[in-house]
Amino acid sequence: MNKPAYQELHARNARLHRLAHLQAICAWDRAANMPAKGNESRSLALAEIDGLLHELATDPAWPGLLDRAAQEDLGDEERANLRETRRAWRAANALPQELVQARSLAGSRCEHAWRSQRPANDWAGFLPNLREVVKLTRQEAQLRAEATGLSRYDALMDQFEPGMRAAEVERVFGELRGWLPGLIRQVCERQAGEELIEPVGPFAKPAQKALGLDVMRLLGFDFEAGRMDESAHPFCGGVPEDVRMTTRYNENDLLAALMGVVHETGHGRYEQNLPRQWLGQPVSHARSMALHESQSLSFEMQLGSHPAFAKQLVPLLTKHFGPQPAFEPANVQRLITRVKPGLIRVEADEVTYPAHVILRFEIERALVEGEIECEDIPALWDAKMMELLGLDTRGNYRDGPMQDVHWTEGAFGYFPCYTLGAMYAAQWFAAMRREDAQLDSRLEAGELQPVFDWLRSRIWQAGSRFETAELARLASGEALNPAHFKAHLYSRYLA
Amino acid sequence: MNKPAYQELHARNARLHRLAHLQAICAWDRAANMPAKGNESRSLALAEIDGLLHELATDPAWPGLLDRAAQEDLGDEERANLRETRRAWRAANALPQELVQARSLAGSRCEHAWRSQRPANDWAGFLPNLREVVKLTRQEAQLRAEATGLSRYDALMDQFEPGMRAAEVERVFGELRGWLPGLIRQVCERQAGEELIEPVGPFAKPAQKALGLDVMRLLGFDFEAGRMDESAHPFCGGVPEDVRMTTRYNENDLLAALMGVVHETGHGRYEQNLPRQWLGQPVSHARSMALHESQSLSFEMQLGSHPAFAKQLVPLLTKHFGPQPAFEPANVQRLITRVKPGLIRVEADEVTYPAHVILRFEIERALVEGEIECEDIPALWDAKMMELLGLDTRGNYRDGPMQDVHWTEGAFGYFPCYTLGAMYAAQWFAAMRREDAQLDSRLEAGELQPVFDWLRSRIWQAGSRFETAELARLASGEALNPAHFKAHLYSRYLA
Repeated sequence: MNKPAYQELHARNARLHRLAHLQAICAWDRAANMPAKGNESRSLALAEIDGLLHELATDPAWPGLLDRAAQEDLGDEERANLRETRRAWRAANALPQELVQARSLAGSRCEHAWRSQRPANDWAGFLPNLREVVKLTRQEAQLRAEATGLSRYDALMDQFEPGMRAAEVERVFGELRGWLPGLIRQVCERQAGEELIEPVGPFAKPAQKALGLDVMRLLGFDFEAGRMDESAHPFCGGVPEDVRMTTRYNENDLLAALMGVVHETGHGRYEQNLPRQWLGQPVSHARSMALHESQSLSFEMQLGSHPAFAKQLVPLLTKHFGPQPAFEPANVQRLITRVKPGLIRVEADEVTYPAHVILRFEIERALVEGEIECEDIPALWDAKMMELLGLDTRGNYRDGPMQDVHWTEGAFGYFPCYTLGAMYAAQWFAAMRREDAQLDSRLEAGELQPVFDWLRSRIWQAGSRFETAELARLASGEALNPAHFKAHLYSRYLA
Repeated sequence: MNKPAYQELHARNARLHRLAHLQAICAWDRAANMPAKGNESRSLALAEIDGLLHELATDPAWPGLLDRAAQEDLGDEERANLRETRRAWRAANALPQELVQARSLAGSRCEHAWRSQRPANDWAGFLPNLREVVKLTRQEAQLRAEATGLSRYDALMDQFEPGMRAAEVERVFGELRGWLPGLIRQVCERQAGEELIEPVGPFAKPAQKALGLDVMRLLGFDFEAGRMDESAHPFCGGVPEDVRMTTRYNENDLLAALMGVVHETGHGRYEQNLPRQWLGQPVSHARSMALHESQSLSFEMQLGSHPAFAKQLVPLLTKHFGPQPAFEPANVQRLITRVKPGLIRVEADEVTYPAHVILRFEIERALVEGEIECEDIPALWDAKMMELLGLDTRGNYRDGPMQDVHWTEGAFGYFPCYTLGAMYAAQWFAAMRREDAQLDSRLEAGELQPVFDWLRSRIWQAGSRFETAELARLASGEALNPAHFKAHLYSRYLA
C-alpha cells in the first residue's frame, strides 16, 4: 500500500474509537445506572479519559500526517475521511488539555447536582455550578473562535452543526417568528372545537416499557445491537455497534413516553445503520446534530404523527392496556397532534416546539457572547415564554431554565439543531413524496419499509461522506429549505 | 513535602485507578447489559484499555521511582503502599503488551461464545476458543515464572493469592481429601432421615429480586454505592465507590439465587468498606482473592447458614411469597444446610463444595504446567467427579467443565481461593467466638452488627496494609489454620 501516512491516520482514528467506546458506555451508565455515591469517582474517570483522548488527538504527529496523507493517492471516500479527520484534529487542537478536563469535571458535577436540584426547584443551588460551566464554555468559545475565525457562538455551534452560522439561524428563525405565533393561535382555535377522549390512567411503568419495546420493534430497532433503559433526561448514547437509548415514564401520561421512544428510535436507527465499512473512522460518523435530529423527528413527527401510524399503534395500545374508548385511530391521532403551548420543551408538540428552541438559542447566544450572565436567565426566560407562548414561568425554575440537561453539561450551540432537524425532516418527506406519489397510501397500508429504505440509502449510509449542504442536495435535490417545514405544518394542522 | 518520588508514584497510581474504573464498569456492562452484536467492539475496546493500562504500568520511570521512594521518609502506611505498588509493577512488567492484549481479546471472545455454547452443551465449539486462551495463559505463566522464580502455576496463583504456593494448597487439600468423603457420607446418611418440606414454586423473578434486595439491606449493603443486576455467571465487579454485583434467578429454586445474593453481598461489603483514605492506591485494595472469598463465605456460610439467620429470613420469604409450610425457621435452616453431591459448583453446599475446588485445582494445575491438554479435560473431570462425589458427568459438558466462567476468561489459579476462603471464614468466626462468648446468642437475638463490626475493623479497613499471613495473625491470632474449617463442618453437620 502506497499511502503510509493515511494508514497511520486510520490506525490512530481506530484507537480513538476504541477508547471513546469506554467513555460512551460509562457516560450512558452514569445516566442510566449509577448510584449517587459513584459520581465523584465517575466524574474523575470520565475527565481522565477525556484528557487522554484529547492528548492522543493533539499528538504533534497529526499535522504532518494530515499533510502527507493529502499528497497520497486516495480514493474519494478516503479523501472524505481525511477531511473529517482534519476537522476533528482542528476541533481537538483548539483547546488545552487542562480546559478539556476542567470542562468535563464541571459538567459532570453540575449535571449530577442538577438531578436533585431540578425536582427541588433549587435555582440558587444550581447557579454556582452553572456559572462554572459557563465560565469554562466562554473560555472554550474564545479559543475556538481564535482557531477558526468564527464568532464565539458560531465556533461552538460548528462543533454540533459544521458549517451552520448564527446569522443563518437568525434568518431562518426570524422568518419562523413571523408566521409561527399566528399558526399556533389558528391551530389552537381550530382544535378547541374537536372532541378528544383522554386515555384513562394510571399507566403502569412495566406495561409502558413493554409497549415501548413493541413500538421500537415496529420501527425496526435492532435489539441485538442496542438497548432501551431509563434516565432522568432521555438520550441516545452508546456506540453505533451498541446503541444505548434511554427514556422516562410518566404513569399519568402514556403518550409522552411513547413518542419519546419513537423519537429516540430515530436516533438509534441512524446510529445502527451508519456505514459499517468505515467503522471507527470519522467519515463513518453521523453527519451532524441537525441531521441526527432530522432522523428522530422523521420518526416522531413525520412518521410517528402521521395518521397512518396511529392505526398501527392502536392494537399495541390495546395489547398492553386493554381496550379504552380513547384507543381509536382518529382519536389517537388527535391526541398525538394536539397543539398546546406548554412549559416543557421535550413534551412540546411540533407546532410550539420551535418557540422553545428560538428562546434557548437567543439566550445561549447572548450568554456565550458575554452579553448576559447566568443570573439574567430567569427573567429573560420569563419574558420570552410570555412573548412566544403566552406563558408565565416566574419562580418555576424546574420547568423553566432548569428543565434541560444541555447547559448543565456545557452543550451550548446545540439547541438550534432541533428545529433545523425538524426542517430537514420535512424536507426529506417532501422529497420522498415527490419520488413516490403513493407514499401516503403505502403508509396507510402499514408499509413503513419505504421510509426506512429512503432514510437508510440517502442519510444513514452516507455517514459523513459529504458536507451537510451537499448531502441534503444529494438526498433531496436542494440544500436546507425551511419552506417544507412550513408547508408540512400548514398541511397537517390547517388543511 | 520531602518525598517527591513517592508523590509521583501516588499520582501515577491514582491515574491508573481512574482509567481502571472505566474498564471495570464496561466489563460489568458486558456481562449485565450488552447485546450480542456489541461484543466484538467491546472486546476491542477492553483490549485497548488493557493495553493502555499495561503501557502506563510498565513505563520505564517506575523502577527508578520505586527505588528513590524507598529512600524517602515514609510512614508505615506509605511503606505498605510502596510494597504493594512494587508488587503491581512486577506483575505488570512480566508481560509484553502484545500478550496482555491478545489474552484480553481471546478471553473476551471465548467468554462471549461460551454464553451460547454452554446452554447448547457445545464442547466441540468451545474447545478451539479455550485452546487459544490456554495457549496464551501458558505463555503468561512461563513469563511470570521467569520473573519470580516460581513454578508456572504458582506464578499465576500469586496474582490472586500473593504468597500462596501449590505445595501448600496440596498439603491443605490433601488433608481435606482425607476426611471430606467420609464426612459427606456421614452427613448424607444423617440427613436422609430428616423431614424436609420443599418450598412450592414457581418463584417469579421480580419477587425474587425484591427479596434479594431486602436481604442485601438486612446485610448492610449500601445501595447508594452499588447495584445488583443479572448476569449469566454471578460476580461482584465495579469499583469500591460503585460496586456492581450480579446474580441469576431460577424460578424453580428460590434458595439458590437467594444464597447467591448473600454470597455476593459479602464481596460487595468488603469492597464498599475498603479504606477510603487511600482510595486509588494499591494499599487500599482487597488483600487477596482468598480473603475476598472469606468475606463472601463469612456472609453465605458462617452467617447466612447460621440457624439464627434462617429466623430472620422467614418474615422476608413470607413477605414476598406468602406463607408456606416450608417457611418455618428450622425447615429453612435444614433447606439451607442440605448436603447433596451435585454437578454444579456454585450451587454446592459448603460440605461438598471443596470437592469441586480440589477437582478444578488439580486439572488447571496440570493444564498450566503442560501435563495435559484441553481435550483431556472431560475425561479427567468425569473421573474426579466420580472419585470425589460419586457422580457420572460423561457427555454433560454444560454441567461439567463448561459450567464456570473462570477458564473462559483465562483466570487460572483462582479456584483454590474459594476453599482457602472457606477456611479463613471459619477461622474468623472461631476468633469472634473466642473474643465474644455471647456471639451466638446475639445472632439468635437478631443482632448482626457485631459480625459486621468485627469484619470491618479486622479485614475490610485493613485493605492491603499487611501481607496475608500477618493480616490473619492480627485479625485472628494465627496464620491460616484449616482446623477451624473442619471443626465448623463437624460441629454444624454432625454435632
